Amino acid sequence: MEKPAYKIALLGAGNVAWHLAPALEKAGHEIVYVYSRTLANAEALAQNLKAAQATDQPDFSQTSADLYIMAVKDSALPELLQAAVFPENSLVAHTSGTLPLMVFEPYKNIRGAVFYPLQTFSKNTPVSFRNIPFCLETTDENAMLLLQKTAGSLSEQVYKVNSEERKILHLAAVFACNFTNHLFGISAEILQQNHLRFEMLQPLVEQTVQKAFSQNPFSVQTGPAIRHDENTIQTQLQFLQTNPTYQQIYELLTRSIQQKS
Amino acid sequence: MEKPAYKIALLGAGNVAWHLAPALEKAGHEIVYVYSRTLANAEALAQNLKAAQATDQPDFSQTSADLYIMAVKDSALPELLQAAVFPENSLVAHTSGTLPLMVFEPYKNIRGAVFYPLQTFSKNTPVSFRNIPFCLETTDENAMLLLQKTAGSLSEQVYKVNSEERKILHLAAVFACNFTNHLFGISAEILQQNHLRFEMLQPLVEQTVQKAFSQNPFSVQTGPAIRHDENTIQTQLQFLQTNPTYQQIYELLTRSIQQKS
Repeated sequence: MEKPAYKIALLGAGNVAWHLAPALEKAGHEIVYVYSRTLANAEALAQNLKAAQATDQPDFSQTSADLYIMAVKDSALPELLQAAVFPENSLVAHTSGTLPLMVFEPYKNIRGAVFYPLQTFSKNTPVSFRNIPFCLETTDENAMLLLQKTAGSLSEQVYKVNSEERKILHLAAVFACNFTNHLFGISAEILQQNHLRFEMLQPLVEQTVQKAFSQNPFSVQTGPAIRHDENTIQTQLQFLQTNPTYQQIYELLTRSIQQKS
Repeated sequence: MEKPAYKIALLGAGNVAWHLAPALEKAGHEIVYVYSRTLANAEALAQNLKAAQATDQPDFSQTSADLYIMAVKDSALPELLQAAVFPENSLVAHTSGTLPLMVFEPYKNIRGAVFYPLQTFSKNTPVSFRNIPFCLETTDENAMLLLQKTAGSLSEQVYKVNSEERKILHLAAVFACNFTNHLFGISAEILQQNHLRFEMLQPLVEQTVQKAFSQNPFSVQTGPAIRHDENTIQTQLQFLQTNPTYQQIYELLTRSIQQKS
């Protein structure tokens, strides 16, 4: 694959920027600016980069970058967007999974876009971008081409996803990640209260995930609910009687599994 | 680690036996017999082994093995146990996660045990035993030593787990595996109905699992519920209105997450 080298300015020095900036450099791009409200944070990130200038002033009027990436918290974006000054017709992309493209609507002098890596980032956990899906959105065709080349230089999974679809992705992620994490928490709590280690379940959980992504998850459902094993279901409900919420979750998910079978 | 070589007879030629038998051989043990109700199945498995004799007769009275492993379905075990004939004082272990040690109670001439690998097996998916937790139970001290050596020759994770604890492990696995798989199914369905691919969520799900097992899952909870992001919660509930069960699951899990925070 050809490696297009773009000049990229990064607004934000948090978890996303922290991983994205070096990855973009490694892919051949040049990070020209790192902005953060806190200069020390911008400097800390810029230090790890070849030629990035750190700044706490979001005035980019005298700069020229092919792409301005706003990797800040959802709650901080509107304010920063209002404060920032970009050269006329700049391509400015945010990295949020939830903010619509519409946030750029009031700013007619720039081309707004979404450059959203579908993954959670934490500073100390290394990330391989190769398999991270990038969800891209913009109404400008040339801008889309540039975003696709940029994302494609990082990852093999690049998708056009509009704001409506991003909402659906987010809902699906709530079920597949947020809610499952809560079930892991309940499972861990049950084990810990009985002096058993949650780690014992790790191989089984990992296998469950592999199976779910290799086939339709509903088609590989196992357990007492799908077997209509009333004996086990009643015993397990009985065990949960000290926690009515967990009992309700057990009953409702059992019923939902049985509805699907 | 010393590699003790035991003579082992396998009763069953299903998924568990199919993976366990060659792994035991590789660990230095000798599989001397493979029993199956269907001779062809016993033969098919024995063919892959060095010196195993296939049989469809559960009469082991003229044999001498250090360990008889009954790797059959829960529903088939009681009948096979009644039909089988073992030499006096034989060590006979089942591989079930749900059957209690008590199933051996009526058979005073043998030493009953549990040799339970905490993983699901399917014939065509290769398995590495190294990380699979083995849950062992028996009342006989020498028998426990032999089971520990056998399990220890396969895996680095060997646990003494009594029948009551095994029940709790099973309940925890229902939450962490069966119920999460159902949530994966709902997530995949929502995406597919909107022409989006479930595979897009795989990196995020895998990261969620890694995080959940590296810290307390409750402490790494993310999403609209824990943020009390009522706006997103209401929008997402609205989206689910055509499916009352999914709506109920969303409401209940959101409430449960908030109770824990």
